Amino acid sequence: MSDIPAADTETEVNRLHAEKMLRRRAARERMMAEKTEERGLLIVHTGPGKGKSTAAFGMAMRAIGHGMKVGIVQFVKGAWTSGERAVFERFPDLVEIKALGEGFTWNTADRARDIRAAEAAFTEAKRMIADPSFKLVILDELNIVLRYDYLPLDEVLDALSAKPGGLHVVVTGRNAKPELIELADLATEMTMVKHPFRDGVKAQKGIEF
Amino acid sequence: MSDIPAADTETEVNRLHAEKMLRRRAARERMMAEKTEERGLLIVHTGPGKGKSTAAFGMAMRAIGHGMKVGIVQFVKGAWTSGERAVFERFPDLVEIKALGEGFTWNTADRARDIRAAEAAFTEAKRMIADPSFKLVILDELNIVLRYDYLPLDEVLDALSAKPGGLHVVVTGRNAKPELIELADLATEMTMVKHPFRDGVKAQKGIEF
Repeated sequence: MSDIPAADTETEVNRLHAEKMLRRRAARERMMAEKTEERGLLIVHTGPGKGKSTAAFGMAMRAIGHGMKVGIVQFVKGAWTSGERAVFERFPDLVEIKALGEGFTWNTADRARDIRAAEAAFTEAKRMIADPSFKLVILDELNIVLRYDYLPLDEVLDALSAKPGGLHVVVTGRNAKPELIELADLATEMTMVKHPFRDGVKAQKGIEF
Repeated sequence: MSDIPAADTETEVNRLHAEKMLRRRAARERMMAEKTEERGLLIVHTGPGKGKSTAAFGMAMRAIGHGMKVGIVQFVKGAWTSGERAVFERFPDLVEIKALGEGFTWNTADRARDIRAAEAAFTEAKRMIADPSFKLVILDELNIVLRYDYLPLDEVLDALSAKPGGLHVVVTGRNAKPELIELADLATEMTMVKHPFRDGVKAQKGIEF
């Protein structure tokens, strides 16, 4: 930034830049041309960072924007909040939400009750997965339920394996089981690089809830 | 899962579980009680994985759900698409979008034009940041523009440092500059664990766009 290049150097920089961009565009177009299969994806958002449920929420809104019907099962209460609900309520024909978690896992000390709630949520999840009117089903915080062995992993993997070909399913929550990632088409890990709680900032409306 | 524990073992498992959960709840409540500062956050979504813009979109929708006004500047065209637009158009009083990127960086070979577009987007970003009616401003794919040195990093950091105390700003895009992460209150890295393009699946409506 300190030296201003001579005009011919600047021209050369621009020429090299243009060549690099054209190569990338060509590579991307070749890659996209090879991708011909249309199918519903099994997507996992995991990791200790933020954005797992929020990105699923963004996908739900995007699908709604396309007129696609969305089902959401909340396995743990608290991840989806008043901000989301106010928006989803604007699209009553396109969104069905089943909130069956009894509270954050660390807010309950009753394991048997948590298991019953997880089973009820899984029943709803299976119903939505089998219902062809849904194009996207979000199983929010299912990973937490699986981590605590509140549901049999094999039964969950069976249900996900049996999903209709065109249906997208998104599973969120930290500590995704390796078997689930193995089954998934797309898995993203959100990693916390920096978190404001370290610096004494409290949770913010519109950001955290 | 193979052995069914005797009743007293099951009771002991539940008792230990309840104790652990109560300890976690107490720790979380202590932590939350210490967090007293309310302030707007500078948030960065970076990394090579998916969900950076989608999570920002989810945050925008959540803020809208709270009646908070949201400004969005698209530094690179393509990250926000027809699905998002259809949803945002339902809330015309609460969302202002400025799309100034001229196309994916790898879709243009004209560096001078990209720089002009980045500068125009930055002017809009500064206007939104200074306008107290906005509660959340999303600078989508700003990191890409910074990575290519299309804007002076110092000027961008100055503008972000000068944001009003109550305003939340979200910056997205891979390859965030270390200086930006240093300035941020919260930074999340999205890492790709598994991607369907590897397996020959093409981009999907409602998922990718």
